Amino acid sequence: MGGFFGAVSRRDVVMDVFFGTDYHSHLGTRNAGMAVWNAERGCQRQIHSIANTPFRTKFEDDLPKFSGTCGIGCISDTDPQPLLVRSHLGMYAITTVGIINNAEALVETYFAAHGHQFMAMSSGKVNTTELVAALINEGDTLRDGILHAQEKIDGSMTILLMTGSGEIIAARDRLGRLPVHVGRDRDGYCVAFESFAYHKLGYQDAYELGPREIVRITTDGIETLAPAGEDMKICAFLWTYYGYPNSNYEGMNVELMRYRNGEIMARDELARGTMPDVDYVAGVPDSGVPHAIGYANRSGKHFARPFVKYTPTWPRSFMPSNQGVRDQVAKMKQIPVPELIEGKKLLFVDDSIVRGTQLQGTVDFLYESGAAEVHMRSACPPIMYACKYLNFSRGNSDMDLLARRTIQQLEGDEGQRHVDEYADSGSERGKCLLHAICEKLGFDSLGYQSLEGLLEAIGIDRSKVCTYCWTGKEE
Amino acid sequence: MGGFFGAVSRRDVVMDVFFGTDYHSHLGTRNAGMAVWNAERGCQRQIHSIANTPFRTKFEDDLPKFSGTCGIGCISDTDPQPLLVRSHLGMYAITTVGIINNAEALVETYFAAHGHQFMAMSSGKVNTTELVAALINEGDTLRDGILHAQEKIDGSMTILLMTGSGEIIAARDRLGRLPVHVGRDRDGYCVAFESFAYHKLGYQDAYELGPREIVRITTDGIETLAPAGEDMKICAFLWTYYGYPNSNYEGMNVELMRYRNGEIMARDELARGTMPDVDYVAGVPDSGVPHAIGYANRSGKHFARPFVKYTPTWPRSFMPSNQGVRDQVAKMKQIPVPELIEGKKLLFVDDSIVRGTQLQGTVDFLYESGAAEVHMRSACPPIMYACKYLNFSRGNSDMDLLARRTIQQLEGDEGQRHVDEYADSGSERGKCLLHAICEKLGFDSLGYQSLEGLLEAIGIDRSKVCTYCWTGKEE
Amino acid sequence: MGGFFGAVSRRDVVMDVFFGTDYHSHLGTRNAGMAVWNAERGCQRQIHSIANTPFRTKFEDDLPKFSGTCGIGCISDTDPQPLLVRSHLGMYAITTVGIINNAEALVETYFAAHGHQFMAMSSGKVNTTELVAALINEGDTLRDGILHAQEKIDGSMTILLMTGSGEIIAARDRLGRLPVHVGRDRDGYCVAFESFAYHKLGYQDAYELGPREIVRITTDGIETLAPAGEDMKICAFLWTYYGYPNSNYEGMNVELMRYRNGEIMARDELARGTMPDVDYVAGVPDSGVPHAIGYANRSGKHFARPFVKYTPTWPRSFMPSNQGVRDQVAKMKQIPVPELIEGKKLLFVDDSIVRGTQLQGTVDFLYESGAAEVHMRSACPPIMYACKYLNFSRGNSDMDLLARRTIQQLEGDEGQRHVDEYADSGSERGKCLLHAICEKLGFDSLGYQSLEGLLEAIGIDRSKVCTYCWTGKEE
Amino acid sequence: MGGFFGAVSRRDVVMDVFFGTDYHSHLGTRNAGMAVWNAERGCQRQIHSIANTPFRTKFEDDLPKFSGTCGIGCISDTDPQPLLVRSHLGMYAITTVGIINNAEALVETYFAAHGHQFMAMSSGKVNTTELVAALINEGDTLRDGILHAQEKIDGSMTILLMTGSGEIIAARDRLGRLPVHVGRDRDGYCVAFESFAYHKLGYQDAYELGPREIVRITTDGIETLAPAGEDMKICAFLWTYYGYPNSNYEGMNVELMRYRNGEIMARDELARGTMPDVDYVAGVPDSGVPHAIGYANRSGKHFARPFVKYTPTWPRSFMPSNQGVRDQVAKMKQIPVPELIEGKKLLFVDDSIVRGTQLQGTVDFLYESGAAEVHMRSACPPIMYACKYLNFSRGNSDMDLLARRTIQQLEGDEGQRHVDEYADSGSERGKCLLHAICEKLGFDSLGYQSLEGLLEAIGIDRSKVCTYCWTGKEE
Repeated sequence: MGGFFGAVSRRDVVMDVFFGTDYHSHLGTRNAGMAVWNAERGCQRQIHSIANTPFRTKFEDDLPKFSGTCGIGCISDTDPQPLLVRSHLGMYAITTVGIINNAEALVETYFAAHGHQFMAMSSGKVNTTELVAALINEGDTLRDGILHAQEKIDGSMTILLMTGSGEIIAARDRLGRLPVHVGRDRDGYCVAFESFAYHKLGYQDAYELGPREIVRITTDGIETLAPAGEDMKICAFLWTYYGYPNSNYEGMNVELMRYRNGEIMARDELARGTMPDVDYVAGVPDSGVPHAIGYANRSGKHFARPFVKYTPTWPRSFMPSNQGVRDQVAKMKQIPVPELIEGKKLLFVDDSIVRGTQLQGTVDFLYESGAAEVHMRSACPPIMYACKYLNFSRGNSDMDLLARRTIQQLEGDEGQRHVDEYADSGSERGKCLLHAICEKLGFDSLGYQSLEGLLEAIGIDRSKVCTYCWTGKEE
Repeated sequence: MGGFFGAVSRRDVVMDVFFGTDYHSHLGTRNAGMAVWNAERGCQRQIHSIANTPFRTKFEDDLPKFSGTCGIGCISDTDPQPLLVRSHLGMYAITTVGIINNAEALVETYFAAHGHQFMAMSSGKVNTTELVAALINEGDTLRDGILHAQEKIDGSMTILLMTGSGEIIAARDRLGRLPVHVGRDRDGYCVAFESFAYHKLGYQDAYELGPREIVRITTDGIETLAPAGEDMKICAFLWTYYGYPNSNYEGMNVELMRYRNGEIMARDELARGTMPDVDYVAGVPDSGVPHAIGYANRSGKHFARPFVKYTPTWPRSFMPSNQGVRDQVAKMKQIPVPELIEGKKLLFVDDSIVRGTQLQGTVDFLYESGAAEVHMRSACPPIMYACKYLNFSRGNSDMDLLARRTIQQLEGDEGQRHVDEYADSGSERGKCLLHAICEKLGFDSLGYQSLEGLLEAIGIDRSKVCTYCWTGKEE
Repeated sequence: MGGFFGAVSRRDVVMDVFFGTDYHSHLGTRNAGMAVWNAERGCQRQIHSIANTPFRTKFEDDLPKFSGTCGIGCISDTDPQPLLVRSHLGMYAITTVGIINNAEALVETYFAAHGHQFMAMSSGKVNTTELVAALINEGDTLRDGILHAQEKIDGSMTILLMTGSGEIIAARDRLGRLPVHVGRDRDGYCVAFESFAYHKLGYQDAYELGPREIVRITTDGIETLAPAGEDMKICAFLWTYYGYPNSNYEGMNVELMRYRNGEIMARDELARGTMPDVDYVAGVPDSGVPHAIGYANRSGKHFARPFVKYTPTWPRSFMPSNQGVRDQVAKMKQIPVPELIEGKKLLFVDDSIVRGTQLQGTVDFLYESGAAEVHMRSACPPIMYACKYLNFSRGNSDMDLLARRTIQQLEGDEGQRHVDEYADSGSERGKCLLHAICEKLGFDSLGYQSLEGLLEAIGIDRSKVCTYCWTGKEE
Repeated sequence: MGGFFGAVSRRDVVMDVFFGTDYHSHLGTRNAGMAVWNAERGCQRQIHSIANTPFRTKFEDDLPKFSGTCGIGCISDTDPQPLLVRSHLGMYAITTVGIINNAEALVETYFAAHGHQFMAMSSGKVNTTELVAALINEGDTLRDGILHAQEKIDGSMTILLMTGSGEIIAARDRLGRLPVHVGRDRDGYCVAFESFAYHKLGYQDAYELGPREIVRITTDGIETLAPAGEDMKICAFLWTYYGYPNSNYEGMNVELMRYRNGEIMARDELARGTMPDVDYVAGVPDSGVPHAIGYANRSGKHFARPFVKYTPTWPRSFMPSNQGVRDQVAKMKQIPVPELIEGKKLLFVDDSIVRGTQLQGTVDFLYESGAAEVHMRSACPPIMYACKYLNFSRGNSDMDLLARRTIQQLEGDEGQRHVDEYADSGSERGKCLLHAICEKLGFDSLGYQSLEGLLEAIGIDRSKVCTYCWTGKEE
């Protein structure tokens, strides 16, 4: 995914940008960058790969060279950023978080005309942020250009921009799928994806951008250049999976939402009488754990941690982009506590069930380790449609999804016409799917949180939450 | 502290030593090393500082250069290791974990005679491991030398040694304060401080050394060179604080011990009727958390995580040697979840209360964040005596300890004569101390686990557990 | 300045590009890059700063990742290169050597239109090579685009380009100020600034491009896309100063030209009877040395090396871009041999006298070291006009030049109207200038090679040699 | 070989030690180190490998961490240095240059006794400097210990030592094979292998140690602890091959000696009437060049440089320890100027002929490049005995030497009994050997400097010069 942090102040903001960006490290593992500005020297910029070395280690040596009263930084899971751009709109630094599904088509549009060009990357691919800049540069002003870009882009694009005169312009994506927070302290303002990043640096919450809103931020304040849109489709997975426990989106804390989500699951199971008798309730680290805490708290069952992550040398919590590496690292990182597994009846809560491969390995291991029973609960309904806005399901086609594959096995192409029904675990087809997956993965029992329960746990106006991956409905 | 891993096999063990040593990374942050042996090339050795970069990153580039059927590696919180030594005992590689309180006196002994020398480090200090080697070299055999060293050393010394003929000799410290485990697979054996390190690599438990036992390990098996002693004084803090959740010492798992320890605390509070009415039971990360889980499970109170550690870029869980840095990093790493603090009544469990300064900061923060009540529980009794065997209390004199300072404030030097009574929270003086500390730190209530309860939680023969830091009694 | 190397072959050319580029290291000290192509993977590209570490050390680690049957590399004294460009002309890699005097004006031209953009560098400056690419992309084909760029650029631009289908296109600057050589071996072709670079790699001379000629090079051969122009103005300083001893330009070897140049100076001095009686003839390292060898050989005087460069740790022979650093490093590098200076009468030959500051320091040192006499000879006439094609005089204005400053001191603005006459050391004003500089710098005698003599030494058709810096005449 | 630099002053000497050591970089390519001392912090020490990166680059980052009024540094072609040693003689830093032929025997001596030990290096070898320290520590004082070490060591050992109280002790090897110079400035003293190193730093010559002399150097002056011995055997190769042009040994400059050596060769050839008619006299770079300059100056033949070294990226002038690499790098570095070879009659002067393999390659290349004639002159007589004092012939046995191999081919074992006669090129056997080598290597003519001529060129008392490699006589 990626994340960013910017600041504009009456004092030097290099350290704020450094630490503020660092606190977005859980959102990406490939590239990171910083650009700072001061009146004398203009822009200074640095980009490093963070594939093997964390952000702080990589940028520490650059700090003495930087000085500035305005700056932006980014953690990128894709291309090198931020870019410095010169066009008829002047010079500016830009970083983006998002996905452009029609990138090649947009590039082709530019190829038609002479004199246009992109600085390609090694692979020949055009840097996504350069493409966004090209779209912006079609406008008469940065504001108009950003609106134009948002319109042309099929996908989702959140933009952070530092102008050649030391101001910050932030633009949330068209449907507010990702958050943009503004903080304030005595000397100025900052902008971040994660609000906890600036809380730790002494900033207070000042503003949260609405969907497609564009703001200019200077030491004098926050000015809306283009108003927020009506429609919002913020990603539900920010709460169930992506977000850090300290993150707040639309005013709702991630950790709290997960407790509540687990509690609702337990409450509903108690009501249905399906809660098994287990020794321990446990979470699949990392994001399954708080769902499990909520489940345990509500059910009165003992909470435990039969898997512990070895963090000292595996700091990246989250998402190497290659699935094979992701599985391997996950395996090296997760270390079992046999005393909490052998002969025990365990109920595990996982954040979601996407492809099912990693889960399969976990279950196999548990039984091999002597678990008496393994009951599995998913903190959200089965994923039925691959995400096309944030790509969190990593470029998988729908048929890579465990639920869809199982449906295919159950009744072939015909089944794909009843995905809606399958998604409802109360329906016949839904029960059938649940049963099939449970059997395939070898659980003693399986349960999914319902879409109702999930939306209840999130707690904001449900029309504002994107549920495409479960319903396949864009609106 | 530090840790080590060694392997001897019929196949190449470089990757085993690499990953096995890496799994001890939680035990040290300064230096690390690997030495491997094969019949053609003899010894190959590499040492790196791991102060800023984790073990794996530092040693990855060395792997292609290494090949060997025997090898040892170490994570050291002190001097560079392993050392290669040549003496009348031949050539060998050696790494140690421990503390020598009489190091300077031992060095002086050597200075008396001509021709003896130590290769000093930058500071002028003699490398502890070189000093151990010098003591060993006074013996006629490695076995005799190790016994001689164990006798001369005031402190504690666990030794791992690889001979010039590709065998491993492991020696547990005289009173078994630290563990030494031996694992076995089809092709050979390995030896480790943490048994989970080799479980992940496919080895099975084969043997656990007794106090001061010396074994030779070859591909043919494990041979005891010097038998275990009767007396054992394994450190109780391995369970309450040092150990990784997956660690087992004397057959007792750390995570499980902590759950039980928390459960006993809750049980006893319920019995005493002192358990406060709280919204959440929570642990001070990292080691306080499982104590809190146990407490929550037994008390039926809801467990929660009002502090979350930001691990992506602060991987080292544990112990920068400078206290100031330790406090600072701890602060940057711990990020609050305001929604779980504001207006809430919280009961926190910490692993121990040593100096109290870090705890003070935490409590202040909680009240500033709007906590309604903060109740604190320590997973062990107040530390009354600074450790002189493993130095875990980091060279503090007794009077750096919060309890001793408070006693001094309560009744001056006279109080220091009644430390035993103060340590018993059921006694008059004990209650008085509890009350004073509670007031000083500003808790709504304070409780300590009793020594009885702690030993019950550890569960092994209590005469085998070192309780010096609470009782001041060596035996 | 900078240099480049490219190869296209039926075998892998990575090592050829690596070593071939490395052999251009004397031409730049800032950035270097390599781009290689193969049919499966397309383009791979890497750029490193070489400010502190030589090319080979920086790129060695990249070699295993590269594979390709076509590749280009560059040593750049300015911006990072080569760039990968995508436009309506497809994808290509491009590197350039040259100077664009009207860069900002060209950029402004682009700013007028929406949608155009440049990826700025930290300083805000547009990468020269990106600007060249933008000009090329205005053409309908690469050939037309290059011709268009050559026409628009005020300055000099030599271009090396690798297409997305693994062909090489090379274009010499409009007036052939810099050379472009093509070599051939059994498997393919290569292209280089310095022909000795490919001689060492087993290639034979195949072709030398004429001014503004454009060629396409494939494994099948060399095809002229645009023919050479009539007019050539190759830089005379390539022989007197820039070139490596092994370099050949227009068929004339640099070392040989310098011997001959020194011989002509000696011959003319003998004829004029102005040759002083000295103990040693010596050169100011590096480029003055071969001029001095020629002078010594012809005069029969003993050659010696009273200054020796300390090369083991000062490898860069040539041109840090900051004049202050250049002077400092030069001083640390040059170590005197007092035995060859004290009490000796010395005749020194320097390649040229530009600003005079470094020379001044050298002379002062010689007298302080006890030299009995110091006679100075410049291997070319006094520089009267700052170069505007290759920038070798490093952005100095005319009035930074020693000769022009001295003229100003001699007769003020009036003098600047007689620069031509001053440049001729046979004229009255020429003698007067010579005398004034000699006195100012404190030599016992001073002599300049005449323009006639210099052109004789170069030996090619004199109309093809640029003599702007002496005559101020562009044609 | 290696070199060192030390300084003790009333001001900080870190920069002096840094640059002074750097100026010894031509003497080694493996390891380098610095140790500095100040009253507050005691010793600080750093060691780096310089195998791939020059000294300055490696130590630049350490400079801010160092501060001290006393310091030593070294360039080592062997083991890591300087070492910090603690013994009954206190703490000191030590670095050495030399060879210990009986190292293993000395180590064995120590192994006999219990408690002695060496910190072995990866290979299992004992660090030579640690062994020297062990010998020193057998004395009652540093002075006595050094004398003891000098007596026990078979080979040659020059020692630089910094005491724990910030004084310097320097000891020249027993027979003064290598030089030790002391310099002085206003604030203190320095000591170096190469005097030009401190000249560049503003020090004046103050003292040159005699053979086996030991001096203590403080800010107060130079005190002789043990007087110089009568006998000196300084290495003749310091002048013919090892020394830098700026180096002075026993008052004789290297560059000057080489000119004179070449002049004597030319003078004698003129007298004998053997000087061939050639177009150019040239030197085999680097050390052959000044011999050739002298030859050309005296003979009146033109000097030229048909081979030029590509120094920008091959900075190390001198001696990778692996012969294969040495040959390869030499080949990549030396670039011919075909215009000075093709069709030319060339006389080349090389510093010496040792194994002959590299020379063979050079000659082959010259003929392939079209040389009409190649005449070879060696600046010293044929090497007949492998050096056992400084190991400059790199561990070759006598039979690796070209001359000895040729003798064996000429008359078998019988020939080895007449080595003396063969070494005299005026004798029958000498002429025969000359003829045989000339034919084997394919020269048009071959000549050796005579031992007489060589000693005349060196110019100091001939009994003080070691000529073992030509005469096989130790005294």
